[in-house]
Amino acid sequence: MTEKNEPIVVWHEQTIGPAERHQLNHHRGCVVWFTGLSGCGKSTVANEVDQQLHQLNRHSYLLDGDNVRHGLNATPQILAKDYGEDFGKRFGLGFSQEDREENIRRVGAVAGLMCDAGLITLTAFVSPYRADRDAVRASLKEGDFFEIFVDAPLEVCESRDPKGLYKKARAGEIKGFTGIDAPYEPPTDAELVLDAAGETPDLLAKRVVKMLTDAGIFKPAGDC
Amino acid sequence: MTEKNEPIVVWHEQTIGPAERHQLNHHRGCVVWFTGLSGCGKSTVANEVDQQLHQLNRHSYLLDGDNVRHGLNATPQILAKDYGEDFGKRFGLGFSQEDREENIRRVGAVAGLMCDAGLITLTAFVSPYRADRDAVRASLKEGDFFEIFVDAPLEVCESRDPKGLYKKARAGEIKGFTGIDAPYEPPTDAELVLDAAGETPDLLAKRVVKMLTDAGIFKPAGDC
Repeated sequence: MTEKNEPIVVWHEQTIGPAERHQLNHHRGCVVWFTGLSGCGKSTVANEVDQQLHQLNRHSYLLDGDNVRHGLNATPQILAKDYGEDFGKRFGLGFSQEDREENIRRVGAVAGLMCDAGLITLTAFVSPYRADRDAVRASLKEGDFFEIFVDAPLEVCESRDPKGLYKKARAGEIKGFTGIDAPYEPPTDAELVLDAAGETPDLLAKRVVKMLTDAGIFKPAGDC
Repeated sequence: MTEKNEPIVVWHEQTIGPAERHQLNHHRGCVVWFTGLSGCGKSTVANEVDQQLHQLNRHSYLLDGDNVRHGLNATPQILAKDYGEDFGKRFGLGFSQEDREENIRRVGAVAGLMCDAGLITLTAFVSPYRADRDAVRASLKEGDFFEIFVDAPLEVCESRDPKGLYKKARAGEIKGFTGIDAPYEPPTDAELVLDAAGETPDLLAKRVVKMLTDAGIFKPAGDC
Protein backbone atom coordinates (compact mmCIF):
# COMPACT_ATOMS: atom_id res chain seq x y z
CA MET A 1 0.00 0.00 0.00
CA THR A 2 1.23 3.49 -0.77
CA GLU A 3 0.90 6.41 1.59
CA LYS A 4 -2.27 7.26 -0.31
CA ASN A 5 -3.60 3.88 0.71
CA GLU A 6 -3.76 2.62 -2.88
CA PRO A 7 -2.33 -0.73 -3.81
CA ILE A 8 0.65 -0.61 -6.15
CA VAL A 9 0.04 -3.03 -8.95
CA VAL A 10 3.20 -3.98 -10.78
CA TRP A 11 2.82 -6.31 -13.69
CA HIS A 12 5.97 -8.27 -14.27
CA GLU A 13 6.80 -11.39 -16.13
CA GLN A 14 9.46 -12.94 -13.92
CA THR A 15 11.17 -15.40 -16.20
CA ILE A 16 13.33 -18.13 -14.76
CA GLY A 17 16.94 -17.55 -15.81
CA PRO A 18 20.49 -18.67 -15.02
CA ALA A 19 20.49 -17.08 -11.54
CA GLU A 20 17.33 -18.94 -10.46
CA ARG A 21 18.59 -22.24 -11.87
CA HIS A 22 21.96 -21.74 -10.18
CA GLN A 23 20.14 -21.36 -6.88
CA LEU A 24 18.09 -24.52 -7.46
CA ASN A 25 21.03 -26.67 -8.65
CA HIS A 26 23.75 -25.20 -6.43
CA HIS A 27 25.96 -24.80 -9.49
CA ARG A 28 26.18 -22.91 -12.75
CA GLY A 29 25.51 -24.36 -16.17
CA CYS A 30 28.42 -24.55 -18.61
CA VAL A 31 29.69 -26.39 -21.68
CA VAL A 32 32.62 -28.82 -21.41
CA TRP A 33 33.76 -29.55 -24.94
CA PHE A 34 35.91 -32.66 -25.45
CA THR A 35 37.83 -32.77 -28.73
CA GLY A 36 40.36 -35.23 -30.12
CA LEU A 37 41.00 -37.99 -32.64
CA SER A 38 38.72 -40.97 -33.02
CA GLY A 39 39.79 -43.50 -30.39
CA CYS A 40 41.48 -40.94 -28.11
CA GLY A 41 39.01 -41.68 -25.33
CA LYS A 42 36.76 -38.59 -25.46
CA SER A 43 33.52 -40.47 -24.88
CA THR A 44 34.99 -42.70 -22.18
CA VAL A 45 36.39 -39.76 -20.23
CA ALA A 46 33.28 -37.60 -20.74
CA ASN A 47 31.12 -40.47 -19.56
CA GLU A 48 33.31 -40.89 -16.50
CA VAL A 49 33.00 -37.14 -15.78
CA ASP A 50 29.21 -37.47 -16.08
CA GLN A 51 29.28 -40.23 -13.44
CA GLN A 52 31.61 -38.37 -11.09
CA LEU A 53 29.48 -35.23 -11.34
CA HIS A 54 26.34 -37.26 -10.64
CA GLN A 55 27.96 -38.70 -7.53
CA LEU A 56 28.56 -35.11 -6.43
CA ASN A 57 24.87 -34.30 -7.02
CA ARG A 58 25.69 -32.06 -9.97
CA HIS A 59 23.30 -31.88 -12.91
CA SER A 60 25.11 -32.91 -16.05
CA TYR A 61 24.41 -34.38 -19.46
CA LEU A 62 26.52 -35.90 -22.21
CA LEU A 63 25.91 -35.12 -25.86
CA ASP A 64 27.70 -37.47 -28.23
CA GLY A 65 27.24 -39.31 -31.49
CA ASP A 66 25.05 -41.91 -29.79
CA ASN A 67 22.24 -39.54 -28.90
CA VAL A 68 22.64 -36.97 -31.68
CA ARG A 69 23.30 -38.86 -34.90
CA HIS A 70 19.93 -40.62 -35.00
CA GLY A 71 17.80 -37.63 -34.08
CA LEU A 72 18.88 -34.01 -34.23
CA ASN A 73 21.71 -34.56 -36.70
CA ALA A 74 20.34 -37.60 -38.50
CA THR A 75 21.79 -38.69 -41.82
CA PRO A 76 19.89 -38.17 -45.10
CA GLN A 77 19.09 -41.91 -45.09
CA ILE A 78 17.53 -41.89 -41.63
CA LEU A 79 15.46 -38.78 -42.36
CA ALA A 80 14.32 -40.13 -45.73
CA LYS A 81 12.63 -43.06 -44.01
CA ASP A 82 10.20 -40.83 -42.11
CA TYR A 83 10.14 -37.67 -44.22
CA GLY A 84 10.92 -38.73 -47.78
CA GLU A 85 13.98 -38.52 -50.02
CA ASP A 86 13.88 -34.79 -50.75
CA PHE A 87 13.59 -33.86 -47.12
CA GLY A 88 16.45 -36.19 -46.19
CA LYS A 89 18.66 -34.70 -48.88
CA ARG A 90 17.82 -31.14 -47.84
CA PHE A 91 18.25 -31.48 -44.06
CA GLY A 92 20.19 -34.68 -43.37
CA LEU A 93 23.87 -34.47 -42.44
CA GLY A 94 26.59 -36.49 -44.13
CA PHE A 95 30.34 -36.26 -43.65
CA SER A 96 31.38 -33.51 -46.06
CA GLN A 97 33.24 -30.61 -44.47
CA GLU A 98 30.15 -28.39 -44.72
CA ASP A 99 27.95 -31.06 -43.14
CA ARG A 100 30.44 -31.59 -40.32
CA GLU A 101 30.46 -27.85 -39.77
CA GLU A 102 26.65 -27.86 -39.43
CA ASN A 103 26.85 -30.95 -37.22
CA ILE A 104 29.10 -29.10 -34.78
CA ARG A 105 27.07 -25.89 -35.09
CA ARG A 106 23.87 -27.69 -34.06
CA VAL A 107 25.60 -29.51 -31.20
CA GLY A 108 27.00 -26.17 -30.06
CA ALA A 109 23.55 -24.58 -30.19
CA VAL A 110 21.98 -27.40 -28.16
CA ALA A 111 24.85 -27.34 -25.67
CA GLY A 112 24.23 -23.60 -25.30
CA LEU A 113 20.53 -24.20 -24.56
CA MET A 114 21.40 -26.90 -22.02
CA CYS A 115 23.93 -24.58 -20.40
CA ASP A 116 21.18 -21.95 -20.20
CA ALA A 117 18.97 -24.64 -18.63
CA GLY A 118 21.57 -24.96 -15.85
CA LEU A 119 23.22 -28.22 -16.90
CA ILE A 120 26.93 -28.97 -16.95
CA THR A 121 26.82 -30.02 -20.57
CA LEU A 122 29.52 -32.41 -21.79
CA THR A 123 30.07 -32.93 -25.51
CA ALA A 124 32.25 -35.61 -27.09
CA PHE A 125 32.86 -35.11 -30.81
CA VAL A 126 36.05 -35.26 -32.88
CA SER A 127 35.28 -31.65 -33.95
CA PRO A 128 38.53 -31.44 -35.93
CA TYR A 129 38.27 -27.81 -37.11
CA ARG A 130 39.45 -25.02 -34.85
CA ALA A 131 37.09 -22.49 -36.43
CA ASP A 132 34.04 -24.64 -35.64
CA ARG A 133 35.03 -25.00 -31.98
CA ASP A 134 35.85 -21.30 -31.74
CA ALA A 135 32.41 -20.47 -33.15
CA VAL A 136 30.77 -22.43 -30.32
CA ARG A 137 32.99 -20.66 -27.79
CA ALA A 138 32.04 -17.30 -29.28
CA SER A 139 28.33 -18.12 -29.03
CA LEU A 140 28.54 -18.56 -25.25
CA LYS A 141 29.09 -16.19 -22.36
CA GLU A 142 32.70 -15.64 -21.27
CA GLY A 143 33.64 -18.39 -18.81
CA ASP A 144 30.88 -20.80 -19.85
CA PHE A 145 32.99 -22.76 -22.37
CA PHE A 146 35.73 -25.23 -21.45
CA GLU A 147 37.67 -26.80 -24.29
CA ILE A 148 39.32 -30.08 -23.32
CA PHE A 149 41.89 -31.50 -25.68
CA VAL A 150 41.92 -35.27 -25.22
CA ASP A 151 45.44 -35.77 -26.49
CA ALA A 152 46.72 -39.16 -27.64
CA PRO A 153 49.13 -39.85 -30.50
CA LEU A 154 47.60 -41.12 -33.73
CA GLU A 155 49.51 -44.41 -33.31
CA VAL A 156 47.85 -45.01 -29.95
CA CYS A 157 44.37 -44.15 -31.25
CA GLU A 158 44.90 -46.31 -34.31
CA SER A 159 46.11 -49.26 -32.25
CA ARG A 160 42.97 -49.02 -30.08
CA ASP A 161 40.64 -48.64 -33.09
CA PRO A 162 37.55 -49.57 -31.02
CA LYS A 163 35.17 -49.40 -33.98
CA GLY A 164 37.57 -50.65 -36.66
CA LEU A 165 37.33 -47.27 -38.40
CA TYR A 166 41.07 -46.70 -38.85
CA LYS A 167 41.38 -50.06 -40.54
CA LYS A 168 38.62 -49.10 -42.97
CA ALA A 169 40.17 -45.67 -43.54
CA ARG A 170 43.59 -47.20 -44.28
CA ALA A 171 41.90 -49.59 -46.70
CA GLY A 172 40.29 -46.63 -48.44
CA GLU A 173 36.78 -47.73 -47.47
CA ILE A 174 36.18 -44.49 -45.56
CA LYS A 175 37.22 -41.23 -47.18
CA GLY A 176 38.09 -38.04 -45.33
CA PHE A 177 38.84 -39.75 -42.03
CA THR A 178 40.36 -37.40 -39.46
CA GLY A 179 44.04 -38.14 -38.87
CA ILE A 180 44.36 -40.29 -41.99
CA ASP A 181 43.25 -38.25 -44.98
CA ALA A 182 41.61 -35.29 -43.25
CA PRO A 183 43.26 -32.85 -40.86
CA TYR A 184 42.87 -32.53 -37.11
CA GLU A 185 43.56 -29.04 -35.82
CA PRO A 186 44.51 -29.29 -32.14
CA PRO A 187 43.33 -26.51 -29.81
CA THR A 188 45.82 -23.71 -29.23
CA ASP A 189 44.12 -22.36 -26.12
CA ALA A 190 42.39 -25.31 -24.49
CA GLU A 191 41.29 -24.88 -20.89
CA LEU A 192 42.73 -28.35 -20.24
CA VAL A 193 44.92 -30.86 -22.09
CA LEU A 194 44.56 -34.49 -21.04
CA ASP A 195 47.30 -37.06 -21.52
CA ALA A 196 44.95 -39.73 -22.80
CA ALA A 197 47.74 -42.16 -23.69
CA GLY A 198 49.32 -42.11 -20.23
CA GLU A 199 46.56 -41.82 -17.62
CA THR A 200 43.40 -43.74 -16.74
CA PRO A 201 39.91 -42.42 -17.61
CA ASP A 202 39.14 -42.15 -13.89
CA LEU A 203 42.13 -39.92 -13.23
CA LEU A 204 41.52 -37.86 -16.37
CA ALA A 205 37.92 -37.32 -15.32
CA LYS A 206 39.05 -36.19 -11.88
CA ARG A 207 41.23 -33.57 -13.56
CA VAL A 208 38.17 -32.25 -15.41
CA VAL A 209 36.08 -32.13 -12.23
CA LYS A 210 38.91 -30.30 -10.46
CA MET A 211 39.11 -27.80 -13.32
CA LEU A 212 35.37 -27.09 -12.95
CA THR A 213 35.74 -26.67 -9.19
CA ASP A 214 38.73 -24.35 -9.62
CA ALA A 215 36.73 -22.32 -12.14
CA GLY A 216 33.96 -21.85 -9.60
CA ILE A 217 31.26 -23.77 -11.49
CA PHE A 218 30.50 -25.43 -8.18
CA LYS A 219 31.99 -25.61 -4.70
CA PRO A 220 34.21 -28.52 -3.63
CA ALA A 221 32.38 -31.59 -2.29
CA GLY A 222 31.37 -31.19 1.34
CA ASP A 223 31.45 -27.39 1.05
CA CYS A 224 28.00 -25.81 1.36
CA MET B 1 35.28 -64.19 -4.79
CA THR B 2 34.02 -67.37 -6.38
CA GLU B 3 34.13 -70.75 -4.69
CA LYS B 4 37.41 -71.33 -6.49
CA ASN B 5 38.73 -68.26 -4.69
CA GLU B 6 39.17 -66.29 -7.92
CA PRO B 7 37.97 -62.73 -8.11
CA ILE B 8 35.18 -62.09 -10.57
CA VAL B 9 36.10 -59.11 -12.64
CA VAL B 10 33.13 -57.52 -14.29
CA TRP B 11 33.85 -54.60 -16.56
CA HIS B 12 30.94 -52.27 -16.79
CA GLU B 13 30.47 -48.74 -17.94
CA GLN B 14 27.79 -47.44 -15.63
CA THR B 15 26.25 -44.62 -17.59
CA ILE B 16 23.99 -42.09 -15.93
CA GLY B 17 20.46 -42.50 -17.27
CA PRO B 18 16.86 -41.48 -16.58
CA ALA B 19 16.64 -43.49 -13.34
CA GLU B 20 19.71 -41.80 -11.83
CA ARG B 21 18.53 -38.34 -12.89
CA HIS B 22 15.05 -39.04 -11.51
CA GLN B 23 16.64 -39.83 -8.15
CA LEU B 24 18.73 -36.64 -8.21
CA ASN B 25 15.87 -34.34 -9.31
CA HIS B 26 13.00 -36.07 -7.48
CA HIS B 27 11.01 -36.06 -10.71
CA ARG B 28 11.03 -37.53 -14.18
CA GLY B 29 11.90 -35.65 -17.34
CA CYS B 30 9.16 -35.15 -19.93
CA VAL B 31 8.09 -32.93 -22.83
CA VAL B 32 5.15 -30.55 -22.45
CA TRP B 33 4.25 -29.38 -25.94
CA PHE B 34 2.13 -26.22 -26.19
CA THR B 35 0.44 -25.70 -29.55
CA GLY B 36 -2.00 -23.08 -30.79
CA LEU B 37 -2.47 -20.03 -32.99
CA SER B 38 -0.18 -17.03 -32.84
CA GLY B 39 -1.45 -14.85 -30.00
CA CYS B 40 -3.27 -17.65 -28.17
CA GLY B 41 -1.01 -17.28 -25.15
CA LYS B 42 1.27 -20.34 -25.52
CA SER B 43 4.47 -18.57 -24.49
CA THR B 44 2.78 -16.69 -21.65
CA VAL B 45 1.26 -19.84 -20.18
CA ALA B 46 4.41 -21.93 -20.73
CA ASN B 47 6.48 -19.24 -19.07
CA GLU B 48 4.07 -19.19 -16.13
CA VAL B 49 4.35 -23.00 -15.86
CA ASP B 50 8.16 -22.66 -15.86
CA GLN B 51 7.88 -20.25 -12.91
CA GLN B 52 5.41 -22.39 -10.96
CA LEU B 53 7.58 -25.48 -11.46
CA HIS B 54 10.64 -23.58 -10.31
CA GLN B 55 8.82 -22.51 -7.16
CA LEU B 56 8.16 -26.23 -6.55
CA ASN B 57 11.90 -26.95 -6.99
CA ARG B 58 11.27 -28.80 -10.24
CA HIS B 59 13.87 -28.63 -13.01
CA SER B 60 12.27 -27.20 -16.12
CA TYR B 61 13.19 -25.31 -19.27
CA LEU B 62 11.26 -23.45 -21.93
CA LEU B 63 12.13 -23.77 -25.62
CA ASP B 64 10.49 -21.14 -27.79
CA GLY B 65 11.16 -18.92 -30.76
CA ASP B 66 13.22 -16.57 -28.62
CA ASN B 67 15.98 -19.03 -27.84
CA VAL B 68 15.76 -21.24 -30.92
CA ARG B 69 15.33 -18.96 -33.94
CA HIS B 70 18.70 -17.22 -33.57
CA GLY B 71 20.75 -20.32 -32.89
CA LEU B 72 19.71 -23.88 -33.56
CA ASN B 73 17.05 -23.01 -36.14
CA ALA B 74 18.52 -19.78 -37.44
CA THR B 75 17.30 -18.28 -40.71
CA PRO B 76 19.42 -18.41 -43.87
CA GLN B 77 20.20 -14.71 -43.36
CA ILE B 78 21.52 -15.16 -39.83
CA LEU B 79 23.66 -18.17 -40.80
CA ALA B 80 24.99 -16.42 -43.89
CA LYS B 81 26.56 -13.73 -41.72
CA ASP B 82 28.86 -16.20 -39.95
CA TYR B 83 29.09 -19.07 -42.41
CA GLY B 84 28.55 -17.58 -45.88
CA GLU B 85 25.64 -17.48 -48.33
CA ASP B 86 25.80 -21.11 -49.50
CA PHE B 87 25.86 -22.49 -45.98
CA GLY B 88 22.93 -20.27 -44.96
CA LYS B 89 20.91 -21.39 -47.96
CA ARG B 90 21.69 -25.05 -47.32
CA PHE B 91 21.01 -25.20 -43.57
CA GLY B 92 19.02 -22.08 -42.62
CA LEU B 93 15.29 -22.38 -41.97
CA GLY B 94 12.68 -20.16 -43.57
CA PHE B 95 8.90 -20.42 -43.39
CA SER B 96 8.04 -22.87 -46.18
CA GLN B 97 6.09 -25.93 -45.10
CA GLU B 98 9.20 -28.11 -45.39
CA ASP B 99 11.28 -25.66 -43.39
CA ARG B 100 8.60 -25.48 -40.69
CA GLU B 101 8.57 -29.25 -40.59
CA GLU B 102 12.32 -29.29 -40.01
CA ASN B 103 11.97 -26.50 -37.45
CA ILE B 104 9.58 -28.62 -35.41
CA ARG B 105 11.63 -31.79 -35.98
CA ARG B 106 14.75 -30.14 -34.52
CA VAL B 107 12.82 -28.68 -31.59
CA GLY B 108 11.36 -32.12 -30.95
CA ALA B 109 14.81 -33.71 -31.05
CA VAL B 110 16.22 -31.18 -28.59
CA ALA B 111 13.19 -31.52 -26.32
CA GLY B 112 13.80 -35.29 -26.38
CA LEU B 113 17.43 -34.80 -25.33
CA MET B 114 16.40 -32.44 -22.53
CA CYS B 115 13.77 -34.93 -21.39
CA ASP B 116 16.50 -37.57 -21.33
CA ALA B 117 18.59 -35.11 -19.30
CA GLY B 118 15.81 -35.12 -16.70
CA LEU B 119 14.23 -31.75 -17.44
CA ILE B 120 10.53 -30.98 -17.63
CA THR B 121 10.88 -29.47 -21.07
CA LEU B 122 8.26 -26.96 -22.16
CA THR B 123 7.95 -25.98 -25.81
CA ALA B 124 5.88 -23.13 -27.20
CA PHE B 125 5.54 -23.14 -30.98
CA VAL B 126 2.49 -22.72 -33.23
CA SER B 127 3.34 -26.16 -34.67
CA PRO B 128 0.24 -26.12 -36.90
CA TYR B 129 0.60 -29.57 -38.50
CA ARG B 130 -0.71 -32.62 -36.69
CA ALA B 131 1.75 -34.94 -38.43
CA ASP B 132 4.73 -32.92 -37.16
CA ARG B 133 3.50 -33.02 -33.56
CA ASP B 134 2.68 -36.71 -33.84
CA ALA B 135 6.20 -37.39 -35.11
CA VAL B 136 7.62 -35.80 -31.94
CA ARG B 137 5.25 -37.87 -29.81
CA ALA B 138 6.32 -41.02 -31.63
CA SER B 139 10.00 -40.25 -31.03
CA LEU B 140 9.52 -40.27 -27.26
CA LYS B 141 8.78 -42.98 -24.73
CA GLU B 142 5.12 -43.63 -23.96
CA GLY B 143 3.99 -41.22 -21.26
CA ASP B 144 6.81 -38.72 -21.79
CA PHE B 145 4.86 -36.46 -24.18
CA PHE B 146 2.07 -34.10 -23.14
CA GLU B 147 0.32 -32.18 -25.89
CA ILE B 148 -1.40 -29.04 -24.64
CA PHE B 149 -3.82 -27.31 -26.96
CA VAL B 150 -3.90 -23.64 -26.05
CA ASP B 151 -7.31 -22.96 -27.48
CA ALA B 152 -8.51 -19.46 -28.28
CA PRO B 153 -10.72 -18.41 -31.19
CA LEU B 154 -8.97 -16.75 -34.13
CA GLU B 155 -10.92 -13.51 -33.45
CA VAL B 156 -9.51 -13.35 -29.92
CA CYS B 157 -5.95 -14.06 -31.08
CA GLU B 158 -6.26 -11.54 -33.87
CA SER B 159 -7.64 -8.86 -31.56
CA ARG B 160 -4.65 -9.39 -29.22
CA ASP B 161 -2.12 -9.40 -32.09
CA PRO B 162 0.83 -8.75 -29.71
CA LYS B 163 3.42 -8.56 -32.48
CA GLY B 164 1.22 -6.99 -35.16
CA LEU B 165 1.57 -10.12 -37.29
CA TYR B 166 -2.13 -10.61 -38.07
CA LYS B 167 -2.32 -7.05 -39.34
CA LYS B 168 0.60 -7.73 -41.67
CA ALA B 169 -0.90 -11.06 -42.77
CA ARG B 170 -4.26 -9.41 -43.55
CA ALA B 171 -2.43 -6.76 -45.51
CA GLY B 172 -0.68 -9.50 -47.50
CA GLU B 173 2.75 -8.55 -46.16
CA ILE B 174 3.21 -12.01 -44.62
CA LYS B 175 2.34 -15.04 -46.72
CA GLY B 176 1.33 -18.42 -45.34
CA PHE B 177 0.34 -17.12 -41.91
CA THR B 178 -1.36 -19.77 -39.76
CA GLY B 179 -5.07 -19.06 -39.34
CA ILE B 180 -5.18 -16.55 -42.19
CA ASP B 181 -3.87 -18.22 -45.33
CA ALA B 182 -2.34 -21.38 -43.86
CA PRO B 183 -4.14 -24.07 -41.90
CA TYR B 184 -4.01 -24.85 -38.20
CA GLU B 185 -4.78 -28.47 -37.43
CA PRO B 186 -5.99 -28.70 -33.80
CA PRO B 187 -4.96 -31.75 -31.77
CA THR B 188 -7.46 -34.60 -31.72
CA ASP B 189 -5.96 -36.33 -28.70
CA ALA B 190 -4.38 -33.60 -26.61
CA GLU B 191 -3.53 -34.48 -23.01
CA LEU B 192 -5.02 -31.12 -22.04
CA VAL B 193 -7.09 -28.40 -23.70
CA LEU B 194 -6.81 -24.94 -22.19
CA ASP B 195 -9.53 -22.30 -22.54
CA ALA B 196 -7.11 -19.50 -23.30
CA ALA B 197 -9.83 -16.97 -24.06
CA GLY B 198 -11.64 -17.45 -20.75
CA GLU B 199 -9.06 -18.07 -18.02
CA THR B 200 -5.98 -16.28 -16.70
CA PRO B 201 -2.43 -17.50 -17.48
CA ASP B 202 -1.91 -18.22 -13.80
CA LEU B 203 -4.94 -20.51 -13.62
CA LEU B 204 -4.11 -22.18 -16.95
CA ALA B 205 -0.57 -22.85 -15.72
CA LYS B 206 -1.95 -24.40 -12.53
CA ARG B 207 -3.98 -26.79 -14.67
CA VAL B 208 -0.81 -27.88 -16.46
CA VAL B 209 1.06 -28.41 -13.18
CA LYS B 210 -1.87 -30.44 -11.85
CA MET B 211 -1.87 -32.56 -15.01
CA LEU B 212 1.84 -33.32 -14.47
CA THR B 213 1.22 -34.21 -10.83
CA ASP B 214 -1.72 -36.45 -11.77
CA ALA B 215 0.45 -38.16 -14.38
CA GLY B 216 3.04 -38.96 -11.74
CA ILE B 217 5.85 -36.82 -13.17
CA PHE B 218 6.37 -35.59 -9.63
CA LYS B 219 4.66 -35.84 -6.28
CA PRO B 220 2.35 -33.08 -4.99
CA ALA B 221 4.05 -30.22 -3.15
CA GLY B 222 4.78 -31.09 0.46
CA ASP B 223 4.75 -34.79 -0.30
CA CYS B 224 8.16 -36.42 0.04
